[in-house]
Amino acid sequence: MQVGAVGESELVRRIAARFPGPSRPGEVLLGMGDDGALLRHPAGSVQVITTDLLLENVHFRRAWTPFDLLGHKALAVNLSDVAAMGAAPGPFFLNLGLPQDLLLSDFDALLDGLAGEARQAGDIVLAGGDTCASSCLHIGVTLTGQVRPERVIRREGGQPGDLITVSGPLGDAAAGLLLLEAGWRWSTTAAAAARPAGGPLDVPDQVATAALAAHLRPVPCLRLGQDLGGKVSAGMDLSDGVAADLPRLCAASGCGARVELDRIPVGAPARALFAAVGMDAPRAALAAAEDYSLLVTVTREAWQSGLGADHGLAIIGRLVAAREGLALLVDGVEEAWPEPGFHHFSRP
Amino acid sequence: MQVGAVGESELVRRIAARFPGPSRPGEVLLGMGDDGALLRHPAGSVQVITTDLLLENVHFRRAWTPFDLLGHKALAVNLSDVAAMGAAPGPFFLNLGLPQDLLLSDFDALLDGLAGEARQAGDIVLAGGDTCASSCLHIGVTLTGQVRPERVIRREGGQPGDLITVSGPLGDAAAGLLLLEAGWRWSTTAAAAARPAGGPLDVPDQVATAALAAHLRPVPCLRLGQDLGGKVSAGMDLSDGVAADLPRLCAASGCGARVELDRIPVGAPARALFAAVGMDAPRAALAAAEDYSLLVTVTREAWQSGLGADHGLAIIGRLVAAREGLALLVDGVEEAWPEPGFHHFSRP
Repeated sequence: MQVGAVGESELVRRIAARFPGPSRPGEVLLGMGDDGALLRHPAGSVQVITTDLLLENVHFRRAWTPFDLLGHKALAVNLSDVAAMGAAPGPFFLNLGLPQDLLLSDFDALLDGLAGEARQAGDIVLAGGDTCASSCLHIGVTLTGQVRPERVIRREGGQPGDLITVSGPLGDAAAGLLLLEAGWRWSTTAAAAARPAGGPLDVPDQVATAALAAHLRPVPCLRLGQDLGGKVSAGMDLSDGVAADLPRLCAASGCGARVELDRIPVGAPARALFAAVGMDAPRAALAAAEDYSLLVTVTREAWQSGLGADHGLAIIGRLVAAREGLALLVDGVEEAWPEPGFHHFSRP
Repeated sequence: MQVGAVGESELVRRIAARFPGPSRPGEVLLGMGDDGALLRHPAGSVQVITTDLLLENVHFRRAWTPFDLLGHKALAVNLSDVAAMGAAPGPFFLNLGLPQDLLLSDFDALLDGLAGEARQAGDIVLAGGDTCASSCLHIGVTLTGQVRPERVIRREGGQPGDLITVSGPLGDAAAGLLLLEAGWRWSTTAAAAARPAGGPLDVPDQVATAALAAHLRPVPCLRLGQDLGGKVSAGMDLSDGVAADLPRLCAASGCGARVELDRIPVGAPARALFAAVGMDAPRAALAAAEDYSLLVTVTREAWQSGLGADHGLAIIGRLVAAREGLALLVDGVEEAWPEPGFHHFSRP
């Protein structure tokens, strides 16, 4: 059965059935079902609000993406933004544009993924949204969060001399996209990568599974973001890749940067995949999008006191004065900053 | 020039140029440009959050809709929800899905309309959002608001015996849609309706202008909502029409309703247009969507103390016990509740 065959009220009923009411009384005074939600905020905290869209054929292809994972990801990319501010996630809102031919079973799987991600994020509450027909599937999430003002992580605040660090290996999500483009698929029943017949990208199943999982099911750094709040000089999440995101942090902080190519921590699946297609692994990982790890700058004092080791951060370079601009260091020689790999609007 | 020809950063620059930073220091601690916005809330108030989408070919047609008016409307429909909660509007968030062939001049006009509506709503601040490519134009607004808890208007709270009232004439927006479907257009240069050649709907220009304005440029009842907060027993905004919306209020309040057909305040443009197409005016106005006036229930005591006269409310019926259900009274005789006129998902 398709979503076009049932009324909007049946779709809303299916949404409401998967998202229980407020679990922390007092936070959400009024949830779904009225003209708006009513939230109450604790004194002493500030509120984070972030909003991100997932659009069919822009951010995902329906044929490549199991619907439960799509639900997880739609919320995860917003959780990543809240984490990157040092905040704890709170109530969220869901806008759905639904093609009439979408199967109800896929709609349900999408909601199950969203609900699963909401549970893992600490039982955050779906407090409202909007559902309507659309020519392409479109999932918009608006997520709130709470953080004490002194623990906020902003893009602004980095100083020349601060160390530039990342919280996880880079490139695995982009490697997963390479696999999807080459015909690999995620098998929901096997919870593993399914190999295409005679495809060009012949990598071990285990490598493919890890890369596809990184692309289809990113895990937001929720605890890490809250742990780093107040301890780092600046930070953001890596949604578009270091090549695109670090210039944004530098612009906000009024700094330049030197990044050492041989310090880029390339994920093992990415290393295997990039080699298989003849790409230079550290350069590809630098431009690769959608890793959703954190990019944070740390003072040398904080680093020396053990901050990086405590939280698994890897140094990739350092902030410099703004007039020195951004550059890549390759065997000690400066190269021009690399082109980002991910631009919605420059795509054909 | 088309939006696909410039980068995302140029589009974001055009957005930022039209929306000044926070005008009330302390409310928005951090606006556009980071992973999320940071808001601070005054003690003693609760926060309203509402979110509504406008999708091309679902909520509007590009050829029918001047872009500045589309910008106004995208924010206005959300302002109407905040008003219907009794709240004052606050910072808002904008998600745009943009077809690559959208003209930059139309993009700018859309932003100008949004910015104009934000100014009229009391200089509310654009605090963040997301911009990406899309196959169809899509405008998602998430709006915050503030209200003291004792002044919240909810759909819940109406009691049998309460009077059902509306805050304005009904049907004019639907009449405007009839005109657009018949070939009438809004002329931005003339700020008036433009007549089609030999169209079937031959009404005076003045009538057409009023109906088109009601459809294309709804005015949210911002002040009225805040004035009614704490004084009415229940309320909501009329986005889908009385026939669709009153059952929602009744369900939330646990009531039935009797509505008297001859009390429906039909707008003058609607009366003329509905007559021209052979529709019964009060019945059509009851089913008509997108008026964005308020539907509020009022105790008899509050009415007798002058609440209705003070705020221009018109009685259309009364709440009854839930077991009596909803019915229309036509010359004193009960009829079945009319079918709503507006269903996204039942459309062909």
